[in-house]
Amino acid sequence: MGEFDLIRRHFQHALQPAGVALGNGDDAALLAPAPGCHLAVSTDMLVEGRHFLPTVDPRALGHKALAVNLSDLAAMGARPLAWTLALALPRADDAWLAALAAGLLALADAHGCALVGGDTTAGPLNLCLTVMGEVPAGQALRRDAARPGDDVYVSGQLGDARLALEVFRGRCEVPAATFARARRRMEWPQPRVALGLALRGVARACADVSDGLLGDLGHILRASGVGARIDAETLMQSAAVSDDVRALPKPLALTCVLAGGDDYELVFSAPAAAREAVQAAAQAAGVAVTRIGAIEEPAAGAAGTARLVDAQGRPYRVPDGAHLAGFDHFA
Amino acid sequence: MGEFDLIRRHFQHALQPAGVALGNGDDAALLAPAPGCHLAVSTDMLVEGRHFLPTVDPRALGHKALAVNLSDLAAMGARPLAWTLALALPRADDAWLAALAAGLLALADAHGCALVGGDTTAGPLNLCLTVMGEVPAGQALRRDAARPGDDVYVSGQLGDARLALEVFRGRCEVPAATFARARRRMEWPQPRVALGLALRGVARACADVSDGLLGDLGHILRASGVGARIDAETLMQSAAVSDDVRALPKPLALTCVLAGGDDYELVFSAPAAAREAVQAAAQAAGVAVTRIGAIEEPAAGAAGTARLVDAQGRPYRVPDGAHLAGFDHFA
Repeated sequence: MGEFDLIRRHFQHALQPAGVALGNGDDAALLAPAPGCHLAVSTDMLVEGRHFLPTVDPRALGHKALAVNLSDLAAMGARPLAWTLALALPRADDAWLAALAAGLLALADAHGCALVGGDTTAGPLNLCLTVMGEVPAGQALRRDAARPGDDVYVSGQLGDARLALEVFRGRCEVPAATFARARRRMEWPQPRVALGLALRGVARACADVSDGLLGDLGHILRASGVGARIDAETLMQSAAVSDDVRALPKPLALTCVLAGGDDYELVFSAPAAAREAVQAAAQAAGVAVTRIGAIEEPAAGAAGTARLVDAQGRPYRVPDGAHLAGFDHFA
Repeated sequence: MGEFDLIRRHFQHALQPAGVALGNGDDAALLAPAPGCHLAVSTDMLVEGRHFLPTVDPRALGHKALAVNLSDLAAMGARPLAWTLALALPRADDAWLAALAAGLLALADAHGCALVGGDTTAGPLNLCLTVMGEVPAGQALRRDAARPGDDVYVSGQLGDARLALEVFRGRCEVPAATFARARRRMEWPQPRVALGLALRGVARACADVSDGLLGDLGHILRASGVGARIDAETLMQSAAVSDDVRALPKPLALTCVLAGGDDYELVFSAPAAAREAVQAAAQAAGVAVTRIGAIEEPAAGAAGTARLVDAQGRPYRVPDGAHLAGFDHFA
């Protein structure tokens, strides 16, 4: 089977939204964003052995590869429009590719996001996706827009993906049903696209939680030149933490919630006056959001760092054994 | 050195053209194409051992990785605007990365194309680039626009990159100076961006020659539902073939010119009435173009194939030993 046949066979789909003037098959695709819209662009690369295991279900892999990219668009408040896929494959395995394509295309279709181009080559397994979305000029949820006094929120629940990873790594044991649920959260993340759209004009700064809450919030704080207070005790007791994660030994639970990557929830700031609007946006998008702290003036020389506090507002004592640094591939 | 430091150190550059509303550093970049413009998007993936050798000069690798993508924009008549880079690296080698970045950024700067995002991960060496360019709506040089009676042209010279590859593979021997020149053509291709822009409104269909002339012309013919006549003898004697390639044994010379990949020239069609305009565009862009045949009504059941003719218009007899099929990674 030739390269072009392979692509044609598995990645054919008819979706061509209004914003796509020319889809796959030319030297380049042509996008036509709506007048007045900016185009949000994000790229991610997934490597076997690093981001997924050789034994991964290819359908889940396809889903996740696109989900993590759509999550970046969600964090900008952008509506998904189109994506490209570059694939390096050790061999052309028909059944594997069919499942990968099914996972990718099902999520793309669910978000009206058209596959408009790509590349396929032989090589160690690697998926590289670029997604493009529309957002009205001036309405994007940028990282540099947080202001002192803003509330800080997270969507959904944090830590389940890391819980699953810790079980895979043999570092903790949990009941089978708990593991199955956590694993599903890790392998089938749901990008918060609807929430990102609903937060346009409501939230100020936003990022997605891919590397861990403190790391991704840190991106917002540094870009905005501010600090933040995170109510650690309140957060750990809130609806933003599942019972399964809360049942873990405390240091591990904190690690999962504050530094666990792969959640693909949104962390965002919004003015205190917007509390009702934030909850209305969350309701419209069908996902819970939890207020977990506030943006502050930066401490002297410490813009970009969040401080953890207890229920009384005192410095939170992080128990020994919690690992709260952001995830860094080359650290 | 951490992942973010590594990117910041080597890939910082200040270029932010008018069409880039927000560059690197957020969940997504924001592009603002000029009003009335479409955005052309293309993606390529380069894998060590497949597209380049481990011993490659990283500066040349950087140049070529971006050049092949800009070549796709050139083939659409699009003006480069922005690009993203995803990198999988076996290790963080500072000197190697500095050279790679220098090669990439020098070409990006030369074309006013801003690096707006990317991803870095550990893994087998892999570069995936996505480029984005602007083209006024309706003016893109699409593959499906060729019409019977159009002339067929190629830019520059064909076959030198393949000549270098054949020497690397030990299949032929040439003087050192010949090899050095051919190798430079293979490793430092110049994307025909200026020509693509000059051909807006002049050419009809266009593609870049990445897989070989017959293969890439075939894409145009199939997309347009037409055939073509290529004057093989005339072509081989024309300025579109270097003296070095012409001096090769004839079967090999034909292979290099008609099926050699990696030239990154443009193959395009234009109405016969536009001959002067085509030459004026070529002159404005500073690159020669050569007329090598014509678009024809498709032979019964044979849309998409070109026929080779001799100087008298008779079927050209391809000598034994010439390999004229398109390049296919999984064939």
